[in-house]
Amino acid sequence: MNGLAAPPKACFTGPMLNPADAALAKRLSECLPDGTLGRAEPRYLEEPRDLAVTPSALLARPRTTDEVARIVRVCAEARVGIVPWGGGTGLVLGQVVPEGPAPLILSLERMCALRGIWPDESVMLVEAGMTLAEAQAAAEKSGRLFPLSLASEGTARIGGNLATNAGGTAVLRYGNARDLCLGVEAVLPDGSVHHGLKRLRKDNTGYDLRHLLVGSEGTLGIITAATLRLYPRPAGIGTAAFAVADPSASLNLLARAQERTAGGVTSFELMSRQGLFFLDEVLPDLRQPFAKRPDWMVLAELGLPAGLDPETVLAELYEAAAEDGLVSDGVIASSSAQARALWKLREALPEANRRIGAIASHDISLPLSEIAAFVDRAGAAIGALGDLRINCFGHLGDGNLHYNVFPPKGGRAADHRHLADAIRQAVHDLAHEFGGSISAEHGIGRLKRDDLERYGDPAKLSAMRAIKAALDPLGIMNPGAVLRS
Amino acid sequence: MNGLAAPPKACFTGPMLNPADAALAKRLSECLPDGTLGRAEPRYLEEPRDLAVTPSALLARPRTTDEVARIVRVCAEARVGIVPWGGGTGLVLGQVVPEGPAPLILSLERMCALRGIWPDESVMLVEAGMTLAEAQAAAEKSGRLFPLSLASEGTARIGGNLATNAGGTAVLRYGNARDLCLGVEAVLPDGSVHHGLKRLRKDNTGYDLRHLLVGSEGTLGIITAATLRLYPRPAGIGTAAFAVADPSASLNLLARAQERTAGGVTSFELMSRQGLFFLDEVLPDLRQPFAKRPDWMVLAELGLPAGLDPETVLAELYEAAAEDGLVSDGVIASSSAQARALWKLREALPEANRRIGAIASHDISLPLSEIAAFVDRAGAAIGALGDLRINCFGHLGDGNLHYNVFPPKGGRAADHRHLADAIRQAVHDLAHEFGGSISAEHGIGRLKRDDLERYGDPAKLSAMRAIKAALDPLGIMNPGAVLRS
Repeated sequence: MNGLAAPPKACFTGPMLNPADAALAKRLSECLPDGTLGRAEPRYLEEPRDLAVTPSALLARPRTTDEVARIVRVCAEARVGIVPWGGGTGLVLGQVVPEGPAPLILSLERMCALRGIWPDESVMLVEAGMTLAEAQAAAEKSGRLFPLSLASEGTARIGGNLATNAGGTAVLRYGNARDLCLGVEAVLPDGSVHHGLKRLRKDNTGYDLRHLLVGSEGTLGIITAATLRLYPRPAGIGTAAFAVADPSASLNLLARAQERTAGGVTSFELMSRQGLFFLDEVLPDLRQPFAKRPDWMVLAELGLPAGLDPETVLAELYEAAAEDGLVSDGVIASSSAQARALWKLREALPEANRRIGAIASHDISLPLSEIAAFVDRAGAAIGALGDLRINCFGHLGDGNLHYNVFPPKGGRAADHRHLADAIRQAVHDLAHEFGGSISAEHGIGRLKRDDLERYGDPAKLSAMRAIKAALDPLGIMNPGAVLRS
Repeated sequence: MNGLAAPPKACFTGPMLNPADAALAKRLSECLPDGTLGRAEPRYLEEPRDLAVTPSALLARPRTTDEVARIVRVCAEARVGIVPWGGGTGLVLGQVVPEGPAPLILSLERMCALRGIWPDESVMLVEAGMTLAEAQAAAEKSGRLFPLSLASEGTARIGGNLATNAGGTAVLRYGNARDLCLGVEAVLPDGSVHHGLKRLRKDNTGYDLRHLLVGSEGTLGIITAATLRLYPRPAGIGTAAFAVADPSASLNLLARAQERTAGGVTSFELMSRQGLFFLDEVLPDLRQPFAKRPDWMVLAELGLPAGLDPETVLAELYEAAAEDGLVSDGVIASSSAQARALWKLREALPEANRRIGAIASHDISLPLSEIAAFVDRAGAAIGALGDLRINCFGHLGDGNLHYNVFPPKGGRAADHRHLADAIRQAVHDLAHEFGGSISAEHGIGRLKRDDLERYGDPAKLSAMRAIKAALDPLGIMNPGAVLRS
């Protein structure tokens, strides 16, 4: 990932794995229904950004938890690595094994049933292979909201969302994937099944295995189903864009919005002037709310109870903030079409970034009140490396910045690739210095393993290796992801 | 705990421990400031309900994380058990060691500093020995809410709240202790320090050690400090009592209240007619809202944004619910004195129970929509055991019932003690059958270890033992709590 001396490569555990070969396929076929095994087509081997590929693998697509357990037991006996596979949308190579013996790719896509939904409890029980969009639709059909929301929601599956503790645009109010999970069913590395599909808000009976599996990226077990927390749909939704002077002012604006709405801010997204210029440059047809592009722009969404008019709440927020010099301009959506148009600006940013071509991009998080200082320091550090452009945007309410660095206008990213490692190191070093994270929502996978070793807390890393060795002594579960095998 | 055949007593790990004796005291005194060690006075050895006592122990009261780490290293070398001690308010013998070699009691009470508070981030950083009431006050002083709230908040300390994943009266809206914790600093069983005091909402960098330590009841490490999540204080608070026909109707009422307020219900407490009769019997001066005691009564509290009148919101909720036959009567507090009077009824229940004298009491949770069927089935099962009275009350919004069983009017609990085991088994068997938990908020400690072995998921128990052996191979951390040593 970067040009520094490699950190010590401590391994968590033991024996070499064997490849998923014809002998394994034969053993598996003896205990599984016909059609469970198959050839791993390219979509199972590639990843979204063509960063790497799994050279070869066996594919299994079980239909039941019991079949998953049988597969794990056979692989444990044969010492073959298993890569749990959801929608294949991960961005850190958690689902791709570029090196080592061919693994078994275990796709959950055929386990996609809605096992139950209890609207009065605000709970549903889904299998791991249901797509996030299908889960949202199931909740909506019952008059409830499943608030997890991501760009890849049409493809990403609940099992992968939980395995990576996915984030997205409504974390500020509803939390990450882990916060929306009440219980899991999972096949553990020895092939035993953890039956943890509780529909309980309170259950203090021992260590929280659910929270250990969530975010472990398939390295401690395979989540096969989950009970998920639903929410009431807010009676009123308000959307506005505000022009603000700097990240400090936007943080202050967020605090006021939370105070007035009793924590009713669903999204609070920050965009920089450079980002607005990028939209002008490559997507000039998009209508922007402010003729003079402000230094920073906030896109805020409120979810409110019955009896409040969202436009009025936003107007009062604006007036009070303007009086104190926090905002210099504002546009409040007066229709859902206008709200969509404001969101479109935010959603178009990744596309604009792609067209312009980033030299390096980052998924970092920071303590909210350090963002302003970070932005200053990082800008200076990048400036020292060359004449570069920075598009810093993201989920301000979560402290989650997508901090992307681009060539000067007219330049090409390819001509600046030699700077990528230095940029990454500068951004990650600073994020670390400010108490931030080098992976806010994407996870570690195989892409950020070196970063985890470099920046991670040594006592935590040591505990992680001990836990991995204890639960997966053969090292078959997603080998090489998160921890070096 | 009950009269059944004992379940298999699988131990997680190895060697016998040594007592905390004079030799240990000498070794500790050599590496700690004067006054750190002391005699364990009775308050460190007893527990709130006089269920058991630690016969003898050495006491250490460190002032810094480094001192905690030194103590753990010396105890590991000497193989002496350590009992982390907060406020001593736990109800499951997690802080009491009735058997085995004398432990070292490590009290966190001198580590009670507010290390930092960031109101605009809604985060504070406190040491483990701060009492919950002090933590609430620190948040309030900064215009924020730390919503964890318990009967014992004046004595219980943050470290213990986190170690036991404490619940309380505002879980419905704000979650348990674990949901309010963004990061921890902890001394692990080998004496290393996990520096995890992140102030981040998103941080996907490896296994979530914080969530493993929270709720592990001091068996995997000692939490020395934590970053805690704060909330805005709601602009308006509304309180009401509703008379409802049954738990089904109250669940339906809760769903409607959540829909109208966009999830603004802070508390939703259920009380039975028997509970109201108990109040009449032993606390007749308490004014009750309904002259004819209803079958069931709900106490609801809303936290609302600016611009809404809580009384109006509650009145509209009442009218709509009455129209559909969900509520038969209601009283809406029109002053904070009236709100306090309504809460007083709920808060007086434990005292009324104490005066009447329970034969057996339970801290269970259930899926919300199973509560009605559970109450019917449990009532029948208890009825089959004898002429007994049931006071079932609790945090309905969390599915958390305190299901307590009493002798007939005029009878004494002592005369029915022979029924206690059968009652407990009937209640816990049924809770388990309905997908519930035998410990909703109090934890396992040493009191419910047998229940955990009986009702716990075998794969989870096996994973718990593996984790315990991996992180605490000497078994020195709170030996015998949660898992049999």
